[in-house]
Amino acid sequence: MNGAQSLFKALVDAGLTTCFANPGTSEMQLVYEIGRNDKVRAVLCLQEDVVTGAADGYGRMTGMPAFTLLHVASGFANGIAMLHNAGRANTPLVNVVGANASYHQPNFPEHELINGRITDFTRVVSHWSAEARSASELGELGAQAAALAKTGKLCTIVAPTNRHWDEANPPPAMPEAQGLPRVAGEAVATAAAMLKNGRKTGLVLGNRALHGAALETAAEIAAATGASLLAETFASRYLARGAGRPVIETIPYEFEMGVKFLSGFEQLVFVGAAFPVATFAYRNKPMYKTPADCALFTMASVSEDMDDALARLSQELAAAGAKVPRNGRAAGEAPKGALTAGSIGQSLALLMPENAILVDEAATNGMAIIEATKQAAPHDYLNPLNGGAIGGGLPMALGAAIACPARKVVHLQADGSGMYTVQALWSMARERADVVIVLLKNDAYSILDLELARVRDGAANSRMMALTSLGDPTLDWVSIATGLGVPASRASSAEDFHARFKAALGSKGPQLIECQLPITAEWRALEDYVQKNR
Amino acid sequence: MNGAQSLFKALVDAGLTTCFANPGTSEMQLVYEIGRNDKVRAVLCLQEDVVTGAADGYGRMTGMPAFTLLHVASGFANGIAMLHNAGRANTPLVNVVGANASYHQPNFPEHELINGRITDFTRVVSHWSAEARSASELGELGAQAAALAKTGKLCTIVAPTNRHWDEANPPPAMPEAQGLPRVAGEAVATAAAMLKNGRKTGLVLGNRALHGAALETAAEIAAATGASLLAETFASRYLARGAGRPVIETIPYEFEMGVKFLSGFEQLVFVGAAFPVATFAYRNKPMYKTPADCALFTMASVSEDMDDALARLSQELAAAGAKVPRNGRAAGEAPKGALTAGSIGQSLALLMPENAILVDEAATNGMAIIEATKQAAPHDYLNPLNGGAIGGGLPMALGAAIACPARKVVHLQADGSGMYTVQALWSMARERADVVIVLLKNDAYSILDLELARVRDGAANSRMMALTSLGDPTLDWVSIATGLGVPASRASSAEDFHARFKAALGSKGPQLIECQLPITAEWRALEDYVQKNR
Repeated sequence: MNGAQSLFKALVDAGLTTCFANPGTSEMQLVYEIGRNDKVRAVLCLQEDVVTGAADGYGRMTGMPAFTLLHVASGFANGIAMLHNAGRANTPLVNVVGANASYHQPNFPEHELINGRITDFTRVVSHWSAEARSASELGELGAQAAALAKTGKLCTIVAPTNRHWDEANPPPAMPEAQGLPRVAGEAVATAAAMLKNGRKTGLVLGNRALHGAALETAAEIAAATGASLLAETFASRYLARGAGRPVIETIPYEFEMGVKFLSGFEQLVFVGAAFPVATFAYRNKPMYKTPADCALFTMASVSEDMDDALARLSQELAAAGAKVPRNGRAAGEAPKGALTAGSIGQSLALLMPENAILVDEAATNGMAIIEATKQAAPHDYLNPLNGGAIGGGLPMALGAAIACPARKVVHLQADGSGMYTVQALWSMARERADVVIVLLKNDAYSILDLELARVRDGAANSRMMALTSLGDPTLDWVSIATGLGVPASRASSAEDFHARFKAALGSKGPQLIECQLPITAEWRALEDYVQKNR
Repeated sequence: MNGAQSLFKALVDAGLTTCFANPGTSEMQLVYEIGRNDKVRAVLCLQEDVVTGAADGYGRMTGMPAFTLLHVASGFANGIAMLHNAGRANTPLVNVVGANASYHQPNFPEHELINGRITDFTRVVSHWSAEARSASELGELGAQAAALAKTGKLCTIVAPTNRHWDEANPPPAMPEAQGLPRVAGEAVATAAAMLKNGRKTGLVLGNRALHGAALETAAEIAAATGASLLAETFASRYLARGAGRPVIETIPYEFEMGVKFLSGFEQLVFVGAAFPVATFAYRNKPMYKTPADCALFTMASVSEDMDDALARLSQELAAAGAKVPRNGRAAGEAPKGALTAGSIGQSLALLMPENAILVDEAATNGMAIIEATKQAAPHDYLNPLNGGAIGGGLPMALGAAIACPARKVVHLQADGSGMYTVQALWSMARERADVVIVLLKNDAYSILDLELARVRDGAANSRMMALTSLGDPTLDWVSIATGLGVPASRASSAEDFHARFKAALGSKGPQLIECQLPITAEWRALEDYVQKNR
């Protein structure tokens, strides 16, 4: 066998079944291997942030890595932003990045970099990254990467073409994963003591603690101790929510909202969750959303056995069987009148089918929708923004649909971030991905209008707004989506959206509904507030 | 003044007048500065490869750097591919990349990288890169970067937010540029000796030697000595061509075509041009397109004074006044019948106005068109592929149109690479960029079908083709472009294209004409050839 075959066998033997790809010359041996058998589903994407963002969505939903095929430094670079999100979310993922033959790189052909090598890029956004020094090593790296990725790591293999075509050994067998390490008893005891000390406490969950048995256990602990059950700002992996699921509040992204939300908390206990720091520092403002004297304690990190830690904490607190507050089920009439975020939220809450996957890149349009869907039928919620890079929504919805073909994906997509990775629509059409895209259009990077308000004296002028507004020309998403093969329509009112959304849920395959939304008075008021309090 | 003001003043004082941007929170102080005065034209782009690719096009046409605003590591990463092209082309360019406040980065907010810092990315694709350690240094770096960029360097400044808002000194005055170094007399003498030794010789030009006085001087040298006048495979900066311009042949990209083209050459003299190496090494094939015993000599590199070197060489060879072979002017009837690359080439040759800018990302569709336009009215020719990263065409056409608002840009765009940066269409609409896009659609990454033929045994199957074909669904570029604000239509025949192209040339602003083209028999024959000779 050659190196490409050894690598391919390593990945397939490790149980990897899905490849998101935008290949080039240096990946052709792998394209050939993928084509010669039927062990891997390969999904072509027209730009690499779609490749990597889809792999992120796939890995979050299945807990298993997809692998990507990326073409040399430029192709990898095009996918870095979504890899950064995936890495910060600890998504299982294996990248295979082609490179020129090792002996040809010194001739400085076009793809060689001015000041470095591909691995200078790959290591920065990967937990683990290595370049194959022989064809046999390519198979070895494949086995290592797949095993490590399954523990929630982002792994990248750089594969020069001569490592593909040279003769290679079969890949080594990898030992079974040992499971994640248990946290020390002292950590559990500390968390238990905090939860019993009578202070105002939040139990903040992230990653694998946001769903399944871990979430239920954590909810019982919160109920038994009177702590608030909180979710990290950007749920990594996914959050189980909707009717019947435990009530859990997400710490708001926007700085002032986050500060207000966390005011009064005296201590926070973290389980696999990121600390609630400000995404950006602002001049003369604190860096944490927590009160200055709030104690922060991580009982278990994402790299430790959170399920076990929560079970032990529950036992220590005798929390099993505590009555958990659960979300109710939305009821009432279909919304009528003007199309608003509130009316869309109401429609989703009423219509989303059980076991749907809700993907959220609604950005500033989404708050009312996300709030309302707490009372939708039980569903899983995904948010790509763990690394702050926008554009992850459409790829994530694609990846989730590939991961879970029997489930309906409902995707909330803002216009500005949606344009980053609009190419994902084509792959959705090609793969008949079962996604209903609710395209929330406000013709602006609204978050930037808020951020501009923090630095400007007086009103914004048209020259400033030219760098935050998307209104000239307005984007016609119906036309764009149709051109990329996704049936699309435009909702003109609340009842029109309700009917279109219901119809879309009733058929298979991707569809897009464009929804023009006003910038709300509440948002403008927040702009005024931060401008006056800068 | 604050750091943002010092940086802005440094760039404006250095003569930079154009900014391509996709800003975020960390760049808001600069957005505010841009808005407070009218010294800089700011162009919003919806994805960062459009930002950087447009800056590449602008810098090539004006010889002056544009500056970019890019948002933190993810935003910079999104623009790396087109920066790599620009860097390999030695385009003048200054990037300003925002970053979180230096004191907040250790808190590991979302945008911080798993294994490094923004500068780990920036240095790899920049000739020069630095992070500001104080607000005053931000202005200093701006002055340095602008001065260095003007010599054909790609320069990147990383600017944490606290360096923007802290109090700063005005930027320092920079000494006038000293000009590029003269090449040694020995180098000119060696080139002269080679050109007189009677061997079959090519004079290979690149970058600034491809236009203006340098091109005319080189053409006289070739004419006087019997050497062939050649252009590097991907013209960096731009190539002056069309009727009345010196005849110059471009070394083909595709490996076998390049080898055939260069067979028989005994020596090549390079002036600012890249060596004709294979873009990728192939198993058991040579790495150079030149014959094994062909001598290669670089008289002047892109970092040296090519004009001066050519003038001295001309003097040594007494070449001034030699009769230069010049391109004729296309004549004849408008093409009729089926729409083909040949017919499109004929239309362009007849209709392109004098002083047009022809941007070429036609890829495998383009050979016949590019050949035919040699006899169009005199024009300048741009090709973004110096770094091998596809997707540079639409951004480059945007940047060229911003750089030269009085000139018509004609842009040849293949479908696969066009989808990489399709967002550029929106900025063209917004800026009323005077670009006619000829969209060449063959529903495939044809170059990859060729590359697959090099590695496969037997025919390609549908699973392999699924990673190289764009046919399911077919892209509707008329719908996509219209949705992004660019008027678009579809040509159904040679005469229909001719009429649509003529009409588009007669009006201002962006327009797109979709042209469905067959994969040619010649291309299929080449696939067969490489498959049999692998």
